[in-house]
Amino acid sequence: MSRLVMKFGGTSVGDIDRIRAAARRVRREVEAGHEVAVVVSAMAGATNQLVAWCQALSALHDAREYDAVVASGEQVTSGLMAIALQTEGVEARSWQGWQIPVRSDDAHGKARIERIEAETLIARMAAGQVPVVAGFQGIGPNQRITTFGRGGSDTSAVALAAALGADRCDIYTDVEGVFTTDPRIATRARKLDRISYEEMLELASVGAKVLQTRSVELAMKERVRVQVLSSFSDAPGTLVVGEEEIVEKELVSGIAYSRDEAKVTVRRVPDRPGVAALIFGALAEAHVNVDMIVQNVAADGTTDMTFTVSRADFPRAEAALRAAHDHIPFAEIATDPNVTKISVVGVGMRSHAGVAATMFKTLADRSINIQVISTSEIKVSVLVAAEYTELAVRALHTAYGLDG
Amino acid sequence: MSRLVMKFGGTSVGDIDRIRAAARRVRREVEAGHEVAVVVSAMAGATNQLVAWCQALSALHDAREYDAVVASGEQVTSGLMAIALQTEGVEARSWQGWQIPVRSDDAHGKARIERIEAETLIARMAAGQVPVVAGFQGIGPNQRITTFGRGGSDTSAVALAAALGADRCDIYTDVEGVFTTDPRIATRARKLDRISYEEMLELASVGAKVLQTRSVELAMKERVRVQVLSSFSDAPGTLVVGEEEIVEKELVSGIAYSRDEAKVTVRRVPDRPGVAALIFGALAEAHVNVDMIVQNVAADGTTDMTFTVSRADFPRAEAALRAAHDHIPFAEIATDPNVTKISVVGVGMRSHAGVAATMFKTLADRSINIQVISTSEIKVSVLVAAEYTELAVRALHTAYGLDG
Repeated sequence: MSRLVMKFGGTSVGDIDRIRAAARRVRREVEAGHEVAVVVSAMAGATNQLVAWCQALSALHDAREYDAVVASGEQVTSGLMAIALQTEGVEARSWQGWQIPVRSDDAHGKARIERIEAETLIARMAAGQVPVVAGFQGIGPNQRITTFGRGGSDTSAVALAAALGADRCDIYTDVEGVFTTDPRIATRARKLDRISYEEMLELASVGAKVLQTRSVELAMKERVRVQVLSSFSDAPGTLVVGEEEIVEKELVSGIAYSRDEAKVTVRRVPDRPGVAALIFGALAEAHVNVDMIVQNVAADGTTDMTFTVSRADFPRAEAALRAAHDHIPFAEIATDPNVTKISVVGVGMRSHAGVAATMFKTLADRSINIQVISTSEIKVSVLVAAEYTELAVRALHTAYGLDG
Repeated sequence: MSRLVMKFGGTSVGDIDRIRAAARRVRREVEAGHEVAVVVSAMAGATNQLVAWCQALSALHDAREYDAVVASGEQVTSGLMAIALQTEGVEARSWQGWQIPVRSDDAHGKARIERIEAETLIARMAAGQVPVVAGFQGIGPNQRITTFGRGGSDTSAVALAAALGADRCDIYTDVEGVFTTDPRIATRARKLDRISYEEMLELASVGAKVLQTRSVELAMKERVRVQVLSSFSDAPGTLVVGEEEIVEKELVSGIAYSRDEAKVTVRRVPDRPGVAALIFGALAEAHVNVDMIVQNVAADGTTDMTFTVSRADFPRAEAALRAAHDHIPFAEIATDPNVTKISVVGVGMRSHAGVAATMFKTLADRSINIQVISTSEIKVSVLVAAEYTELAVRALHTAYGLDG
C-alpha cells in the first residue's frame, strides 16, 4: 500500500466529463489499495476569466481581493470532484486552503506555503476518506485567502505530498510527461522516463512549462518523488526524482528555449570598479530581474555591458537606466527584443567536457551567431536571434543524440 | 449619520459595468456621511451554472459539497466589489461568511443563520472601511461552508443589518419595488411606497418573488426596516416596515398569484375521526408540504378531501397516497396541476368585513369558478383554473381600487 497525491490540472478537470474521468482514475488507485489525496486546479479557463475581471476593474487591484476572487476557481473544482468521487462510490470530501489549514505568508498573489497542518487529513485517509484539496490557495497570517501564483496548484500538491509523507505525487496534465524538447518544434522529441530535480528546474525555468518552478524546488528540498503524466492516456509519465534514482545518466537530457527574453546593451560605460553595481543596483531598485549578463573586455577605458531581462520587465529596465543616467555614465543604450535563449541541460555534463563545445560548433555549422553565453553546472545557455529558434533547437536535439 | 446595509442582487452585479455602477451608489452613501456595509449576491447566472454542474454529476449530491461549490459565486462578487469600491476611492474589503463569521446550523443547502459576530465589522465601519460581505453563505458547526437557499443573500443582508443595528437595509434589485400585483399581467399595477412585514410575507409566500420569505420573517422579528429598490433607477423604492409606520392603511395592498400549485382530491374517504390525520400523516412522512386544505360536508358516510401541494411535490404526494392505500380507504385520487392560487392581501381587512365577499363576487361576475378557498387574518386565497389567472388578477386589481 502506498500513499499517493494525485493532482489534476485545469484541462484535466476542464468540464464535467473530464472531472468524471479524473474521479475514475482516483477510484482505480483507491481500489488498488492506496491511500489517496487529490489536489485540483480550477477548470481550464476559469482562472483567466477571474483574473480578467479583476484587471477590468483596476490594473492596480488589491492583491488580497484578487486572491479572494481567483481562489474561488479551485473551490468550485474541489466540491465538484468530491461529488464525482462519491458518485463513483469513493468516500471523499473537499478541503479549502483555510479549512486544512494550508498556512502561507502574506505575499498575496504569490504567497509561499509555510506549513500544512495535515494531521486531520492523515487520520481521514487512514479511515478510508479521500481528501480533495483546492490547490493554489492557503490562508495568510491575517486570516485572509492567499494564492501561490499561476501554476501554484503544482506547489500545493508537492507541499501536501511532503506533509503527508506520500510515496509519490502524480501531476496529471495535458502532456504525456517531460520531453527532450518541445515536440511542436522538434517532431523527433521523445518523452523522458526519468529526470532529476536539478534538470527539471533548469528546464522549467527556461521555458518548459510543465511544472511550476517552485514546485520542483520544493520537491527537491523535501525529496518528493513527482510523476508528470497525461490524464488523457494510460501511458506512464516522467518521474522527477533525485539523481541517485537515475541509473543511466545521459550527457544531455533536454534542449529548452525561452522566447521571453529581451537584450539590453549599455555602451561605453567607464571600465572601473563599481559601475556594474550602479547599473544593476538601479535595475534591482526598479524590481527588474536580470538573467544573463556579459561584460566585454575593456578597450580605451570603456566597456559594453550586455544583459537580458524578461520581456515584461523590458520597458521598466530601459526607463530605469535612462533615469539613472545622471549617476551612470554611458554613451547609449541598445535594445533588442527579438532574441531567444536556448539551453542544453543535463546532469551528465558535470563529469564530461565538451558539451559546450558541441553546442557552439553545432550552431556555427548553421551560421547561427551566438550573442551571449551563460553556463551553470548542468546547463549551457546561449542567446541567438529569434528567427533561428526552431533551427537551433532541432540541430542541437540531433547533435546530442536525443532524436527518437 | 445613519448606518446602512446595501445589498445588491445578481442582476445588479451581473457584469463589470454593473459592479462599477453599484460601487458608485455605495460611494454616494458614504460621501453623504453614512456608515455602509455591502452584501452581494453572485453575478446573474453564476449560481445557476454552479448548480447545474452539481446536478450533472449527481442528482443526489452531497449538500456539503454543493454548498462549497455554489458559495463561490458570492466570493467572486465580494472581491470584485471591494476592488471596484477601492477604485472609487472608498476604503473597502471583502468578507467571506467564514471570515466574519456568519454562524449557521448545519442544514446544508438551506441553513439558518444563528449568529453574526459583527464586532470587528462595526469597528472597521467606525474607522471608515466598508465591509463587502459575500451573501448567501455562512459557516456551520462543523467548520464547513453553508448556504441559505435561493435568494439567501436577502436573508444575509437583513441578518447583518440586525447584527449591526443598522437604520435600514436597502435591497437593490431589478424591479423598482413591491407592486400591487405583477406588472407583466396588470399594466395598471403600481408601486407601493410602504408595505407591512405581514403583508410582504403573504405576498412573498404566494409568489411575489421580490424578497426571500425568510428574510422578511427575520426583518419582522428583528424590526429591521427594509427598502426594496431598483439599481437601474434613482426612484425611491418600497419600504417594508412595521404596521405602526404605515399611516394610511389600505384595505387591500396587493393581489398575488402562484402558478406553482397542484390540486389533489381524495374521493370518498370514510367520514370518521382520524382519517385526515392518516392522509396528511402519510404526506408529511413523504416530506410533502401541503398548502390549502378543504373537506366537504359528508354525505352517505363518506367525504372528499381536497388539498394543494407545490408542483415539485406533486408526483411524490400522489405516490405517497397510493402507497398508503392499505391503511387509508378511499375510492380514487383525482389530480389537477392546471390551477392557480390567487390571493388578496391587506392588513386593512383585519378591521373590515366584506373583503372576501368582494373577491367572490368579482370572480363570479367573470364566471370564474372557485375550487378551494383559504383565509388568514390578512389574506384571502382562492384556487381557480390556471387559464383564468390573468383575467382574475386584473379584475381583482380593479375591484379593490388598486389601479394606478
